[in-house]
Amino acid sequence: MAAEKIRIGIVGWGNLGRGVEQAAAQNRDMKVVGVFTRRDPKDIDSRAPAFPVSELAKFKKKIDVLLLCGGSATDLPEQAPKIAGMFNAVCSYDTHAKIPAYFKKVDAAARKGRNLAVISTGWDPGLFSLARLLGQCVLPKGKDYTFWGHGVSQGHSDAIRRVAGVQDAVQYTVPIESAVESVRAGKLPELTTREKHERVCYVVPKEGADRDAIRKAIVEMPNYFADYDTTVSFVTQEELDRDHDGLPHGGFVLRSGVTGGGPTQLLEFRLQLGSNPEFTASTMVAYARAIHRLRKEGRTGALTVFDVPFGLLSPLPAEKLRKQLL
Amino acid sequence: MAAEKIRIGIVGWGNLGRGVEQAAAQNRDMKVVGVFTRRDPKDIDSRAPAFPVSELAKFKKKIDVLLLCGGSATDLPEQAPKIAGMFNAVCSYDTHAKIPAYFKKVDAAARKGRNLAVISTGWDPGLFSLARLLGQCVLPKGKDYTFWGHGVSQGHSDAIRRVAGVQDAVQYTVPIESAVESVRAGKLPELTTREKHERVCYVVPKEGADRDAIRKAIVEMPNYFADYDTTVSFVTQEELDRDHDGLPHGGFVLRSGVTGGGPTQLLEFRLQLGSNPEFTASTMVAYARAIHRLRKEGRTGALTVFDVPFGLLSPLPAEKLRKQLL
Repeated sequence: MAAEKIRIGIVGWGNLGRGVEQAAAQNRDMKVVGVFTRRDPKDIDSRAPAFPVSELAKFKKKIDVLLLCGGSATDLPEQAPKIAGMFNAVCSYDTHAKIPAYFKKVDAAARKGRNLAVISTGWDPGLFSLARLLGQCVLPKGKDYTFWGHGVSQGHSDAIRRVAGVQDAVQYTVPIESAVESVRAGKLPELTTREKHERVCYVVPKEGADRDAIRKAIVEMPNYFADYDTTVSFVTQEELDRDHDGLPHGGFVLRSGVTGGGPTQLLEFRLQLGSNPEFTASTMVAYARAIHRLRKEGRTGALTVFDVPFGLLSPLPAEKLRKQLL
Repeated sequence: MAAEKIRIGIVGWGNLGRGVEQAAAQNRDMKVVGVFTRRDPKDIDSRAPAFPVSELAKFKKKIDVLLLCGGSATDLPEQAPKIAGMFNAVCSYDTHAKIPAYFKKVDAAARKGRNLAVISTGWDPGLFSLARLLGQCVLPKGKDYTFWGHGVSQGHSDAIRRVAGVQDAVQYTVPIESAVESVRAGKLPELTTREKHERVCYVVPKEGADRDAIRKAIVEMPNYFADYDTTVSFVTQEELDRDHDGLPHGGFVLRSGVTGGGPTQLLEFRLQLGSNPEFTASTMVAYARAIHRLRKEGRTGALTVFDVPFGLLSPLPAEKLRKQLL
């Protein structure tokens, strides 16, 4: 018996939207019905047909779950509550501090529309949050640490690009290995910002720009670089395009704790991602499957990754999971 | 408002039962009502009162969740279905191949008694199973690997103790670092049993025993050692007691995969446990909390870790988790 495929829609066609189309193609129980865009649909190079986002309402009966692939700064806060009123939805909203307010709005809209949404999937927030939560639950007496990288930070790269005299730039966040090792050794260190990560920048200067001034502007930039050891290397545009084109990322969540008798216990969750947006997209697709199932069971409102059992992320039935994976 | 504590009971007083009592003490919302034993309760050195296991039925209204701390070989298959008929229960049944049959029995008994049970918690099965499942869901195109150790295998230590001329022994399972590194490098290696783990044995010979014969009997033992590179070191009983007294364990679950555009993505979950039984116990206690809540929501029958959202493992309410940990 061939089960019916889960019909998904993609809102937004950037790296994340592309990643979702690719991830859906890796899952046989998924089918992309359409890509919805604010641009001219003719300019969208998706395999699935593209439509203006203004036509979304027409697809109410044709889509099981919508995957929201816009940015967290402006797109999602505006789109998600509207869309959750009409569709089941998955997003990777990642502005940690604003999650409670965002959750509330999406929850209210989804309840009203009798839909189900899961917010802030992806890896941080998302899988890293799950690792932090698990660590605290199984080792209540302990301390957790999150390290990011080696990976490209879009926000920091953008900040460098705004410096006078800079033509282009890529910034890598790099965890400091000795700090990670000291956590792994169960030493429960108190680490300052500077002791956890360093920042490595590849910068293309504009012709005739003052390199010393650029370097100073970067390393002293408050919030972004001032609290870190920052290395600035100048490269040509060709070198940047050739050597720093990917979007790798990842990191570690560690929980170091002690149990009753005193021994040190360590839990570590690590991601080493060749492509940050493709992995985020892949995670969103797995949560789309869970949302589809939970909605069928009658759930409405908003959820987070904390509310979704892992079994629902899998295309396999519970019986097979118990047999093959437990 | 002080919430009512979750009243737990412990069946079996070995390393695991002791670990549960210690773990419960680290969780303010838990209270150990009693330890139930087949031995004379006077011989039990628990902080909570001890009772004969035959008196369990009298505690039906006094215990919210029973934690079954017997062995998987004979205790749990016999006890768990009986107990699940009377109590909500958590176990760490770890005979992977027999899980489906065990699940079925516990599920039927729990449904009949209108109780809820979660089986095979702990770390493998348990948290490692969750990592394997998550890896497969977010990276459907890939391969997973489980490495165990550095840790003491009770089964292998027991097997050595049965060799003629052996007085005592401890066996460590050691993951081969080059194999782990080749997985981390995204090489998707095909690894034989011998290439994944080695076995390191510390053996106390009986007086006058033939050491070469002991060594040969160990390294050639089918199933246990023949497929591995095995090192045997002879030590005195004093040395064994002094240097090999703990029960460390742990390991790695790795999922190496590719997403649509081709980049390699790696997910790794690692445990480095100073005490295997104490960590297993700590995990069981977190699942006891979840079971208590899910039963209140009306769920009955048997579950596995795949069915339990992480949010329910925590004493914190969902709103706080979203704010602090997402």
